[in-house]
Amino acid sequence: MDLHGAFHVYDTTLRDGAQQEGLNLSVADKLSIAKQLDGLGVGYIEGGWPGANPKDTEFFRRAGQELDLRHAKLAAFGATRRAGVRAADDPMIAALRDSGASVVTLVAKSHDRHVELALRTTLEENLAMVRDTVTHLRAEGQTVFLDAEHFFDGYRENRAYALEVLRTAAEAGAEVVALCDTNGGMLPDWVSDVVLDVIETTGARVGIHAHNDSGCAVANSLAAVAAGATHVQGCINGYGERTGNADLVTVVANLELKLDRTVLPQGLLREATRIAHAVAEVTNVPPASRQPYVGTSAFAHKAGLHASAIKVDPNLYQHLDPLVVGNDMRLLVSDMAGRASIELKGKELGYDLSDDRELVTRVTARVKEMEQNGHTFEAADASFELLLAEEVEGARPSYFDVESWRVITETRPDGEAISEATVKLRAEDVRYVVTGEGNGPVNALDAALREAIGQAFPEVAKFELIDYKVRILDQGHGTDAITRVLIETTDGESSWVTVGVGANVIEASWGALVDGLTFGLRRQHR
Amino acid sequence: MDLHGAFHVYDTTLRDGAQQEGLNLSVADKLSIAKQLDGLGVGYIEGGWPGANPKDTEFFRRAGQELDLRHAKLAAFGATRRAGVRAADDPMIAALRDSGASVVTLVAKSHDRHVELALRTTLEENLAMVRDTVTHLRAEGQTVFLDAEHFFDGYRENRAYALEVLRTAAEAGAEVVALCDTNGGMLPDWVSDVVLDVIETTGARVGIHAHNDSGCAVANSLAAVAAGATHVQGCINGYGERTGNADLVTVVANLELKLDRTVLPQGLLREATRIAHAVAEVTNVPPASRQPYVGTSAFAHKAGLHASAIKVDPNLYQHLDPLVVGNDMRLLVSDMAGRASIELKGKELGYDLSDDRELVTRVTARVKEMEQNGHTFEAADASFELLLAEEVEGARPSYFDVESWRVITETRPDGEAISEATVKLRAEDVRYVVTGEGNGPVNALDAALREAIGQAFPEVAKFELIDYKVRILDQGHGTDAITRVLIETTDGESSWVTVGVGANVIEASWGALVDGLTFGLRRQHR
Repeated sequence: MDLHGAFHVYDTTLRDGAQQEGLNLSVADKLSIAKQLDGLGVGYIEGGWPGANPKDTEFFRRAGQELDLRHAKLAAFGATRRAGVRAADDPMIAALRDSGASVVTLVAKSHDRHVELALRTTLEENLAMVRDTVTHLRAEGQTVFLDAEHFFDGYRENRAYALEVLRTAAEAGAEVVALCDTNGGMLPDWVSDVVLDVIETTGARVGIHAHNDSGCAVANSLAAVAAGATHVQGCINGYGERTGNADLVTVVANLELKLDRTVLPQGLLREATRIAHAVAEVTNVPPASRQPYVGTSAFAHKAGLHASAIKVDPNLYQHLDPLVVGNDMRLLVSDMAGRASIELKGKELGYDLSDDRELVTRVTARVKEMEQNGHTFEAADASFELLLAEEVEGARPSYFDVESWRVITETRPDGEAISEATVKLRAEDVRYVVTGEGNGPVNALDAALREAIGQAFPEVAKFELIDYKVRILDQGHGTDAITRVLIETTDGESSWVTVGVGANVIEASWGALVDGLTFGLRRQHR
Repeated sequence: MDLHGAFHVYDTTLRDGAQQEGLNLSVADKLSIAKQLDGLGVGYIEGGWPGANPKDTEFFRRAGQELDLRHAKLAAFGATRRAGVRAADDPMIAALRDSGASVVTLVAKSHDRHVELALRTTLEENLAMVRDTVTHLRAEGQTVFLDAEHFFDGYRENRAYALEVLRTAAEAGAEVVALCDTNGGMLPDWVSDVVLDVIETTGARVGIHAHNDSGCAVANSLAAVAAGATHVQGCINGYGERTGNADLVTVVANLELKLDRTVLPQGLLREATRIAHAVAEVTNVPPASRQPYVGTSAFAHKAGLHASAIKVDPNLYQHLDPLVVGNDMRLLVSDMAGRASIELKGKELGYDLSDDRELVTRVTARVKEMEQNGHTFEAADASFELLLAEEVEGARPSYFDVESWRVITETRPDGEAISEATVKLRAEDVRYVVTGEGNGPVNALDAALREAIGQAFPEVAKFELIDYKVRILDQGHGTDAITRVLIETTDGESSWVTVGVGANVIEASWGALVDGLTFGLRRQHR
């Protein structure tokens, strides 16, 4: 009896995903992420472990008041009752009940060794813990799912017991028994065999919870579905402990786009890229550029040959149209780029270069030379556009002349440190000497630069530095390292990326800052 | 007739891997990576496309003189002859022959649409291009492999033609026909069916070249092997265009450790973690911490419950022993950590805390509080150890007292920028005022600090700052952002990581620098 669709897409980003190294979510973060996940149309959002984790108790409390979910139901995760205690008397079980969640997902040991060594109880008592807790919650009108922890390893060591745990839960009223590959060591064919056996032997509704320790979390999830599972658990961006949980978007995109399964509400898969990146902003874990479907590199083409073919038909080098997941095709300009890439990139930026072969040759040569010296245009479209403008118009766009700059960071008597930059420049025939302050040298330089230029060009007040990346490039023994800086600037409506290169990191940052402002001004003045 | 083992592990990091966005390899880089790959025991290293890519021509030239490979054979990648030209007359084919590589891997179109739209020739001529080029190279005594580009898509649209391409190559003497999922859209069951059909219909020796656009590159590779393929192509660290190629280490580890296939020389899989990270150093692409088998997080445990179980038996939460791939188990200290994690971490660092419950409680509370304020101990073992030492010994280890510091970066008249730091401190009752220079503010502060302390403690001359990470932490609306800095210091033998937090990035860096030196000195003086 499924209360929520023929197929369950069950997100555990806020619970299992949060166990990823480096991930640290506040209650506010969790509420924000929950809203995003709902926008994707997942069926369930596992919000955490109320009772055991105070942050999660708070999440469910606030969720009840603040979250207006259109698609997803909230699930509360927790353990079966403690050994030797009645479910009705266990405060942890009460916390699950009182969380207000639509579903309680109980994790139970299904591996005999874990029952004995980790729980330190008997195999019989563990079954009773499952039976009693499910029965109790069902009697309270609660929908219950079971997470059979370490199921595949447990099945391998003691198949009968593992199946008995599932049967016990199902008979007590658990709607789904999710088979968890907790240690992540399964391979797809093995998952397939186990799921087929489970369905045949128990007749229960089966779910899959895969981890990526063998690099097969997505494939394991698909194999389970092919074998009859109708409930898939995973995390957005593949977050999770160790190597992560199955990437829920990858699984769902494969099911919808390649296996003709409708698992999300109509039209929402198109939001996947936006949502995956929005969640990454909240978690502050930089998104993996090579992530399938939603990664910034997922549809980025570098090889010159690929670009030539794409000129003819984008589908020659893409497995599907990136728009269906809300992503974009990108052509990368690099020393691998040929004339075709430069032409296509120029076209993307609004320049028709098809008639000027000599110009394209010049630009291609300059790109290769600058890349040799540490620049990268792959991620810095605005710097590439300034280079193009320079070649097309005969001179690099420029709105101000810099005389000098200096930035000091020092400890004050009260112990705090402050950064202070002084910039001297000429703009529109007026000389400016401006001092700006910031929480770091680059921040202070940016403040001083924008204040100086802002007196001639007030529009720069809207500009804001929103991202800053540094990389030290090792040029080889005996030579000094070069630093490359990428800066992303926004004017509130769109954003652009510029690159700066130099022996000194502040110098490189300065170069990227100047280009960033120049590009922004050029846009305003065209 | 296989010349090189019953199973081919074929690495294309230097060719297909190099097409990854952000990856830019010099010839020196490629030679260095080739040595590392050889250390892993791969059977083949595809070095590049000599003739088409001048860097690659140079690579093969130098490889002949400088590389002393113990396990791998070099393969040169290239295309079949141009339409309408004889193979013997095609300078690109000559370049492949003259590269000195043991194997030539020819890429041929096996998808009819690509023959027509990208190559712009006839299906018959394409077959002739395959036949002639393979025949020519075989007549010159060259071993030839065929990369059937876009094979699976081609097979889907025109099975007969795709198979004909393979047959043509095999009959002309190609030892292996590698089926390439160039656009990466395949799923494991589909790969399985196709490989079975290919082997049954053509009897050729089949290889697999998978990409990760569906998140199934590893699974697709395993499916092909299960169906009879005996040649697997991939890249270390899963490098490659768009979402990357199949991660060769993941595939090989799964084959050896889970599927009982011996595909590497004895004992070399144990080098996998070291080698994967060494290659990442050369490519300058930060390794993915969650990478299966070799990632720094692959065996890192955060959840308090997991730590409690691991106290009993590490195998309760790991799918295999990390040592077999050269990796380590790590316990993470974070606000998810319970007393068990702190105890285990302390033990890992040489402190037996099992008898002092009150101490463990104090440390656990301090960790949670500091993490609330922006610290992270997950990645900063040395800072955690200093905290522990402070609680155990009653005072934080300290070797110097800082009065003040200041750092200036400015443009010189010649246009170059230079960073200069002045540090005032007391050490061993002597007051020091030292100025240091560097290629950035933190570098200059580090130089000044180490020179000042070095007069009292000469051993700091060995210390070197080798890694530096910054993250801006958004605490929420209306409050100022906090910056967190992680610094890695080495003394030439081992390295340690410290964390610093502050409103100003230089201030946060200073904190991490001071801790880094303090930790290093403590080690020397214990």
